[in-house]
Amino acid sequence: MQRFRAPAALLCDEACTVVRDAVVDVGGDGRIAYVGPYSSAPAVEGPERMLSGILLPGLVNTHAHSAMTLLRGVGGDLPLDRWLREAMFPAEVRMTAHDIFDGTLLGAVEMLLHGITTSTEMYFEVDAQAEAFLQAGARAVLAGVVMDGLPSKTWQEMTDGIGRVIDERGLRYGDHERIELAYGPHSSYLLPSEALSEIGAQARRRGALVHLHTAETIGEDAAIRTTHGSVPRLLETLGLTAGRLLVAHSVHVDADDIALYARHSVGVAHCPSSNAKLASGVMPLVDMLQAGVPVGLGTDGPASNDSLDLLAEARTAALFARSSSLNAAAVTARQALLLATRGGAAALGRSDIGALEAGRWADLVHVAVDSPAFATGLEVPDEQLVANLLWAAGSRGVTDVWVAGRVVVSDGEAVLTNRRKAQAQVGEAAARLRRDVAAD
Amino acid sequence: MQRFRAPAALLCDEACTVVRDAVVDVGGDGRIAYVGPYSSAPAVEGPERMLSGILLPGLVNTHAHSAMTLLRGVGGDLPLDRWLREAMFPAEVRMTAHDIFDGTLLGAVEMLLHGITTSTEMYFEVDAQAEAFLQAGARAVLAGVVMDGLPSKTWQEMTDGIGRVIDERGLRYGDHERIELAYGPHSSYLLPSEALSEIGAQARRRGALVHLHTAETIGEDAAIRTTHGSVPRLLETLGLTAGRLLVAHSVHVDADDIALYARHSVGVAHCPSSNAKLASGVMPLVDMLQAGVPVGLGTDGPASNDSLDLLAEARTAALFARSSSLNAAAVTARQALLLATRGGAAALGRSDIGALEAGRWADLVHVAVDSPAFATGLEVPDEQLVANLLWAAGSRGVTDVWVAGRVVVSDGEAVLTNRRKAQAQVGEAAARLRRDVAAD
Repeated sequence: MQRFRAPAALLCDEACTVVRDAVVDVGGDGRIAYVGPYSSAPAVEGPERMLSGILLPGLVNTHAHSAMTLLRGVGGDLPLDRWLREAMFPAEVRMTAHDIFDGTLLGAVEMLLHGITTSTEMYFEVDAQAEAFLQAGARAVLAGVVMDGLPSKTWQEMTDGIGRVIDERGLRYGDHERIELAYGPHSSYLLPSEALSEIGAQARRRGALVHLHTAETIGEDAAIRTTHGSVPRLLETLGLTAGRLLVAHSVHVDADDIALYARHSVGVAHCPSSNAKLASGVMPLVDMLQAGVPVGLGTDGPASNDSLDLLAEARTAALFARSSSLNAAAVTARQALLLATRGGAAALGRSDIGALEAGRWADLVHVAVDSPAFATGLEVPDEQLVANLLWAAGSRGVTDVWVAGRVVVSDGEAVLTNRRKAQAQVGEAAARLRRDVAAD
Repeated sequence: MQRFRAPAALLCDEACTVVRDAVVDVGGDGRIAYVGPYSSAPAVEGPERMLSGILLPGLVNTHAHSAMTLLRGVGGDLPLDRWLREAMFPAEVRMTAHDIFDGTLLGAVEMLLHGITTSTEMYFEVDAQAEAFLQAGARAVLAGVVMDGLPSKTWQEMTDGIGRVIDERGLRYGDHERIELAYGPHSSYLLPSEALSEIGAQARRRGALVHLHTAETIGEDAAIRTTHGSVPRLLETLGLTAGRLLVAHSVHVDADDIALYARHSVGVAHCPSSNAKLASGVMPLVDMLQAGVPVGLGTDGPASNDSLDLLAEARTAALFARSSSLNAAAVTARQALLLATRGGAAALGRSDIGALEAGRWADLVHVAVDSPAFATGLEVPDEQLVANLLWAAGSRGVTDVWVAGRVVVSDGEAVLTNRRKAQAQVGEAAARLRRDVAAD
């Protein structure tokens, strides 16, 4: 048993409880054995780590394409449709599995440095991604992408390929509890209905999550709105809501769609920065939360955000929700923090991450308080402490991170991966992709 | 002459030019003597500092109440009106000049660490604020606040007091070129028209800037809209647009107001995070820029943002402008960066700061590129480099800062002020204010 003790811990339980003089005990299995005040902690044997700041659970990113660190900042002033077709796809078709490993590794490291311990990825080359997350020491849900119209493979081949990987490695990737495999059909506009239907059936058979983009821009689903009312209604018709489903974006949804999400516990990956940067619109976060939809936060890929920083995303989500509802109490600092942690776990249908609770994985983040952000002290009311974390400190304050009790970030630097080498490899691959695209 | 040489410099001239292998020469007077490519730089004698990252001009904050580091995170989930009256004013009436020095000093240090070299402040106790900015090594425009209805002083006494300070110290605060004094009437809803008129007249007589809050919330100016059409029209009627005028917020303005601002070159301090967090609304940034209004960015005070981080503000401004206009090209990364630099200087009516140009003060910021944000390399197209700075690196990348050629931040730490001591002093003062407010 190892013990972590800190002046304050944010449990990210339902009430977002703040515990002062807090203890987190971690068993040899990497799970939390006890969390609560030191005064009522059991006697344990083993090392005790005294921390000077705030402990919180590892953040849960519900939507990313981390390999796109290779394309960060490319086409940054284009709207989504042109950005995809003119800036992204030409480079992406040239990426090798090795490129995707390099890009994902740097993304995983960047996320850990920002306190993100679990990321939900939708991209090609699932094995390469798994290797990258395992090397960095992070946790991931890897939804292998399925698209129609690629020259190399049909959607059926891509779908069957994911099924094969799941069957061979297991949903939890063999001995590696940290990796969960999933299906990642790109969207209803890049796939025919029969593909979505088939993917949903395969996923249900294997107990796998389906993760796709929905209702991101107003234009993309015009045809589906005419024929099926909306994309969520199409997904229900096709049977996808009968299984585990996580939809990204869902900016352009109406009250019926939201009720449908709530009814089927469809998880939503809310990506406010990406939606704003690409001018897609503002997702009705307040309505979704009121309806009881499990909402998490997504950074989206580093070419459309461009930062894998979930605390920044929580801040941005609260800003847009308050602004669009003209209600400063619409999303409190606590609620925003819960979106980035417990909410993300709920959106994924997972109860083993996203909170400091006995039985969950000991994915821990330590935020230093030696900064102007926390100058008013730790003795402030709980609400103020959470506000200082969310609005002022942000991910900049993250100094140490543990996944299943194992240290992965120490004193602001990655432990298991050479960050500079990972950066250099992305730099080389990005330069080659630029040359190859330009040469065409 | 001292020379700075870096792989890239963002000049923040009209075109936001990116110079590769750039040189900035700084004269003994603290002003830029040459900026441009190394290849065409003149031969100089003196020390040369080789930098490994990106140079940009010091950021210009056009609206802040930095002493409110003392109240950071207090009442963070209240709307503006209640937040002001229930959370802010009760603490503010208890602040001493010494508290304001402590709060401002920490604010000045925090801003320097984030690359802000000039801040426009609206607060009480101008001399205490000046001392804080001088000690930290930063530059400031200090608009002494004027309000009606305080028990201690009338608006006339407060106005005359500012006039006296300007007459005694000079507009540029004696020998200290770094401090500019100004008038800071709070707003048209906390002051009668005759006060605004008198302040405008005094300011014009002394060549001083007038800085006030305008049209921040939809409710605050209802009476003025009935009698005068809008606050900008009232300000024009009262003569304030005939002098130097900088308005903060201006969320609730119409096309006539915007045309009026453009006609009189009224500077606007755009505070998107504060406006969103307090649910005030979204300022029509795109319309203002199209009309030619000089717009800068403001962090607002650390109790309403809560971070004195202008690159974050530039990112937020671009996100809200793109989102509200549904146009991903509405504000490019370059335009956003210009708002935080050259735009801020223009809003203040200053041409001596906000850009790397010969003749301007050598206020310089160095951003390190050894981070995932810049992993795609420095050889990327200019647009991508600026995108990487704005969207991915942010103020986190700032390592070194100079004001008038003097180093004020080195390797991420304040040079002239003991940051930890400044934090501790704010902590003590904040605790005392909490006790005093609670005791009442």
